[in-house]
Amino acid sequence: MTAGKTGRLIGVGTGPGDPELLTVKAVRALKCADVVAYFAKQGRNGNGRAVVEHLLSPTVTLLPLFYPVTTEIETREDSYKSQIAEFYNASAKAVADHLDAGRTVAILSEGDPLFYGSYMHLHVRLAARYSAEVIPGVTAMSGCWSLAGVPIVQGDDVLSVLPGTMAEAELARRLGDTEAAVIMKVGRNLPKIRRALETSGRLGEAVYVERGTMKNEAMIQLSERDDSEAPYFSLILVPGWKEKS
Amino acid sequence: MTAGKTGRLIGVGTGPGDPELLTVKAVRALKCADVVAYFAKQGRNGNGRAVVEHLLSPTVTLLPLFYPVTTEIETREDSYKSQIAEFYNASAKAVADHLDAGRTVAILSEGDPLFYGSYMHLHVRLAARYSAEVIPGVTAMSGCWSLAGVPIVQGDDVLSVLPGTMAEAELARRLGDTEAAVIMKVGRNLPKIRRALETSGRLGEAVYVERGTMKNEAMIQLSERDDSEAPYFSLILVPGWKEKS
Ligand SMILES: C[S@@+](CC[C@H](N)C(=O)[O-])C[C@H]1O[C@@H](n2cnc3c(N)ncnc32)[C@H](O)[C@@H]1O
Ligand SMILES: C[S@@+](CC[C@H](N)C(=O)[O-])C[C@H]1O[C@@H](n2cnc3c(N)ncnc32)[C@H](O)[C@@H]1O
Repeated sequence: MTAGKTGRLIGVGTGPGDPELLTVKAVRALKCADVVAYFAKQGRNGNGRAVVEHLLSPTVTLLPLFYPVTTEIETREDSYKSQIAEFYNASAKAVADHLDAGRTVAILSEGDPLFYGSYMHLHVRLAARYSAEVIPGVTAMSGCWSLAGVPIVQGDDVLSVLPGTMAEAELARRLGDTEAAVIMKVGRNLPKIRRALETSGRLGEAVYVERGTMKNEAMIQLSERDDSEAPYFSLILVPGWKEKS
Repeated sequence: MTAGKTGRLIGVGTGPGDPELLTVKAVRALKCADVVAYFAKQGRNGNGRAVVEHLLSPTVTLLPLFYPVTTEIETREDSYKSQIAEFYNASAKAVADHLDAGRTVAILSEGDPLFYGSYMHLHVRLAARYSAEVIPGVTAMSGCWSLAGVPIVQGDDVLSVLPGTMAEAELARRLGDTEAAVIMKVGRNLPKIRRALETSGRLGEAVYVERGTMKNEAMIQLSERDDSEAPYFSLILVPGWKEKS
């Protein structure tokens, strides 16, 4: 660590996909950043980066943070957990080096940074030691229900945000105990999610949205979609507000 | 209705309060709109309008939609319900007149339009008859947890969004059955919300945020705040992600 002033850490929410859904504040932060860091799969550019590409100055330093290849390991296993913790430690160290040199580091985060985002793993490692700011973003779910024109909650409605990774019985129980729901992380969990929606009697209301606000966006009533694997960027909406007036 | 082309309806999410948290798309829509409509209390300008004031052209037509004065009536009573339905009908009619004249009408909505927003009452009345688009916004809760630097959910966490208007026992039950929660509509419900948090054993984790991202924003652990009435713009965060790694 140098004797000079350390830099600033900024977690930047990049929204659901459409570059126009970045906030004015996010645009300004990205234009001024010395370093732009982003999470990505090995050999990929990361979706977050694609969304902001047009804003970055030619002199910016790009810092890709490549997830370890983990396709063979179950995410609940200890070896996965230690491998991923090591990855976040190393990523935090790479970011800290830039901060110690006095640079402003913007970390891209799809949607909103503190809502199921990888950014928070760096935030908890660095925010106590450096000046840190989080710029909120439009979440994927807001992007998707706006695209679908589906009012999600009103008045006294409860909204439950449910990861599709949950156990089927638990998912069904919660779907039966809420006015509105959003099911995230669909992917290979789709057949299980469909069964849980059926059990809870909510399949008929469910709307499936993939790549919402991106160029190749699509949506369909879930009851009309087959069970083939959903892309990473997909979620399911179960709208509330039954008594419309 | 004229024989010409009808106008476009745009529901515009204006974010949690900081004008910099408008999206690029919202800024563009507001600059181009012929008419900007907004909900407000009688004799007030409405917060949504304050946030966008600096963007509006001098030739824009402002269309304030003043809520009926309802302080004396319980919101669950039938007379309230019919009065408010009438108000939304009249508001939709006022907007439709501009649309019929071929004008683009932007309707301001704090936070995200389809998430507990008044905009949706106009959307369901007009979207089938006119070309309509919803521009999602940063929700108040995203603004507040970003400000507080509180990661809200990670991995398999469930997030429950709970209106503070709910019955105490129901609130307590749901707080005890979720990893993370956001309690909206605090206001006069604060003492009840505190009791429900206490019953469910979650009071110690709760963070209170008022006017998040606005000029006079403030936050405090709820356990350190008294029970005096909270302002309209306030909410409570109960963070998930217990196993930070
Ligand atoms: C790790 S979470 C990140 C959520 C993000 N931080 C947010 O604020 O929405 C990833 C999940 O978000 C959802 N998602 C993200 N972008 C999406 C999009 N454009 N359309 C549909 N779902 C999307 C998918 O369910 C995906 O599994
Ligand atoms: C009718 S709801 C509208 C929610 C809005 N559409 C959104 O997307 O967040 C109003 C509630 O939002 C919350 N709220 C709105 N703005 C806020 C702010 N800046 N800080 C704290 N709470 C806010 C309060 O709980 C308030 O009772």
